[in-house]
Amino acid sequence: MTELRVGLLGLGTIGVGVARILIEQKELISRRLGKEVRLVAAADRDLATDRGLDFSDIRLSDDANDIVTADDVDLVVELIGGYEPARSFVMTALEHGKHVVTANKALIAKHGEELFPVAAEKGLQIGFEAAVGGGIPCMKALREGLAANAIESVYGILNGTCNFILTKMENEGADYADVLKEAQALGYAEADPTFDVEGIDTAQKLSILAAMAFGSKIKFEEVFTEGISKITAADIESAHEMGYRIKLLGIAKPHGAEGEVETVEMRVHPTLVPLASQMAQVSDSYNAVQISGDFVEHTMYFGRGAGERPTASAVVADIMDIASGFPDGIAHLAPPMGFVQSSRRDKPTMPMADTECEYFIRLMVKDKPGVIASVTSILADHRISLEALIQKERHASHNVPIVMLTHETTEGNLQAAISRITGLEAVEEDDVLILRKESAVA
Amino acid sequence: MTELRVGLLGLGTIGVGVARILIEQKELISRRLGKEVRLVAAADRDLATDRGLDFSDIRLSDDANDIVTADDVDLVVELIGGYEPARSFVMTALEHGKHVVTANKALIAKHGEELFPVAAEKGLQIGFEAAVGGGIPCMKALREGLAANAIESVYGILNGTCNFILTKMENEGADYADVLKEAQALGYAEADPTFDVEGIDTAQKLSILAAMAFGSKIKFEEVFTEGISKITAADIESAHEMGYRIKLLGIAKPHGAEGEVETVEMRVHPTLVPLASQMAQVSDSYNAVQISGDFVEHTMYFGRGAGERPTASAVVADIMDIASGFPDGIAHLAPPMGFVQSSRRDKPTMPMADTECEYFIRLMVKDKPGVIASVTSILADHRISLEALIQKERHASHNVPIVMLTHETTEGNLQAAISRITGLEAVEEDDVLILRKESAVA
Repeated sequence: MTELRVGLLGLGTIGVGVARILIEQKELISRRLGKEVRLVAAADRDLATDRGLDFSDIRLSDDANDIVTADDVDLVVELIGGYEPARSFVMTALEHGKHVVTANKALIAKHGEELFPVAAEKGLQIGFEAAVGGGIPCMKALREGLAANAIESVYGILNGTCNFILTKMENEGADYADVLKEAQALGYAEADPTFDVEGIDTAQKLSILAAMAFGSKIKFEEVFTEGISKITAADIESAHEMGYRIKLLGIAKPHGAEGEVETVEMRVHPTLVPLASQMAQVSDSYNAVQISGDFVEHTMYFGRGAGERPTASAVVADIMDIASGFPDGIAHLAPPMGFVQSSRRDKPTMPMADTECEYFIRLMVKDKPGVIASVTSILADHRISLEALIQKERHASHNVPIVMLTHETTEGNLQAAISRITGLEAVEEDDVLILRKESAVA
Repeated sequence: MTELRVGLLGLGTIGVGVARILIEQKELISRRLGKEVRLVAAADRDLATDRGLDFSDIRLSDDANDIVTADDVDLVVELIGGYEPARSFVMTALEHGKHVVTANKALIAKHGEELFPVAAEKGLQIGFEAAVGGGIPCMKALREGLAANAIESVYGILNGTCNFILTKMENEGADYADVLKEAQALGYAEADPTFDVEGIDTAQKLSILAAMAFGSKIKFEEVFTEGISKITAADIESAHEMGYRIKLLGIAKPHGAEGEVETVEMRVHPTLVPLASQMAQVSDSYNAVQISGDFVEHTMYFGRGAGERPTASAVVADIMDIASGFPDGIAHLAPPMGFVQSSRRDKPTMPMADTECEYFIRLMVKDKPGVIASVTSILADHRISLEALIQKERHASHNVPIVMLTHETTEGNLQAAISRITGLEAVEEDDVLILRKESAVA
């Protein structure tokens, strides 16, 4: 029976999960593929810890270089995470003719455009299903399942930490800081939560999804990114009263005449989604991705976005895909980014000022006559019409919260109006929150 | 550039959709694949109707035999539907060395086990993504995306007609017969709706999903099947009061010791699902499939289950998969049923009497003292405990509806109790409805 030999970099949580599947599901995997997948070697700086698995048939090393250059390894699984040394190890593995599977979204988002051409030239595959949406096979759905479609939009709840925090804030009426502490205690948030709560993790994943959807290049640093740290329990309640739930979404859409992708819109921010939508039901640390195409219409993919076992499931799915094409190279696999490397195009990111949205605006104003008139007349000057306006009860501070929902306008126009509004003497500049609304989520 | 030549059987709704994609998305498809997919021939008994597409480069025939034996066709798309002549044409196509893609669930459910070995022996692929879940790439998710998992359960809303009717009955408080008429007028239900509303279509799809999930053989005729035609608006309301929504689900689970699949549970029936579940939000003609695996936990796939464009999207995804492996045969593709043909095993279907469930029981009883006591003491005799019992207002008929929700018991035990209950003089046998409840849907 044909055998694919796997070398594993990193025996942390996910690495142990991958090793566990390759050992425990050995028979299932060969029944599915008609081929063997064998874990031959693994590297980790810490070889002393007992991982509860029988590694007696597996070569262990404390140096990843032993794996990426080994003659008896056909495929390297990179689960070190971060930019370096992950990038160098992956590059060396490719240079030594090894396929690569990784769960590292940071690596793909930042260095993918350097790695993909090397892989393509050498007839090697890079699999990264686990990098976006954890266990959900959404990369495969987008790349292969929806391949007959021009993709019209991608919406994703891509970060379980943020979704856990927002769900708890809503269910308990609690404020951000309190729930963050609880999430940290439960292990759902890091000690330094910036990467998750400020939307950076979501932006990395979105940049990969967008490039795969539209046949463009990955431009993580150009994604407009806002996190959830300014949202209050009162904002969540106001949104709810208006018929919406707040979710941190990554959103990508193509723009151009006659189906040509000319620019790519990419933004990550807290978003109002209709309460009755599928997306609004995605709670706790679950993830979901909605992908719409010109033929298929709306589709959605839901599941665990993180964790040892779900993430390992996605890593091993990639390994099995590559095993299908093995040993004859990857001429028979869908290209990693869903378009053959030579047809991927460098498309500019749409300037955020040009994007169009409906907005949720929360202001704190001094309780004086005429303030609402001043605010609404500035919006009218900018031809921004209102769908709803709620004036809440006065705070202890004698300031009054006002919440508005606008009809569609451009970000540039909205920001110009907001800048005039925050210039009003009666408006507290620090207490302005702008959220965006998406009615098109299914 | 390598070219895959496609011949199309049937220019009905889906056939026109497939032709439309292959013509309109020609450039997109070759940018993705680095290969050309060309529609070279199509057959339909009616060639007179104008389909609004430019067929000038395509050979048209009124005889499908011209396509399935043609030298210049590499892949045959069967969109005739039904058992015969579809089966014969597909068999002839395989015998002539052509890959096959079909949207025909009846064909796969009934004749798949005859067709797959022929395809495997000749190194040919049979694609049928469109046969289950319409545009949703759920076959690919199950076969490839979750390939590292032992599948623990499959739950699906697989028939858009039933889901449309149940959604409308709930939203409008309307009865089955009225909504069916409306659905027929709107084209959502056939003149003879039996195939859809009695669950046969769902059972065909479920039998395919189950065999793919568990590496077993397709046993459509052994699926326990109940439809939605006995459900009343009052039942939907009672379920809602208890925290559930009624959906027609196909359910498949494996049973056996230590992860071995010894028997396969397959049932199609109206099912109570928790109101807050993802599954409960799937409304109108949308479909959804929940697949749970031992590593990935719960995943769900949602989208359009029918219609020209979504179904054509799935058909062309299959064509593109085969084009990826072309012209070197299918050694590099995942096998059609997710397990290599030689490792697929014939597993018995679990007898329905042995399945375990929680039950929703609606009875009509004569308004006399002691009736409820008689009913509940029979249940107690059978060690069936109740989670809830609601006695509704008396009907005009002077009969009183009683609704009960039980804890878990076997179907055999439940049926034995019900048979004693309907033997009571005070119980109207024709007015007994048994629904099943699934708390494990996500």
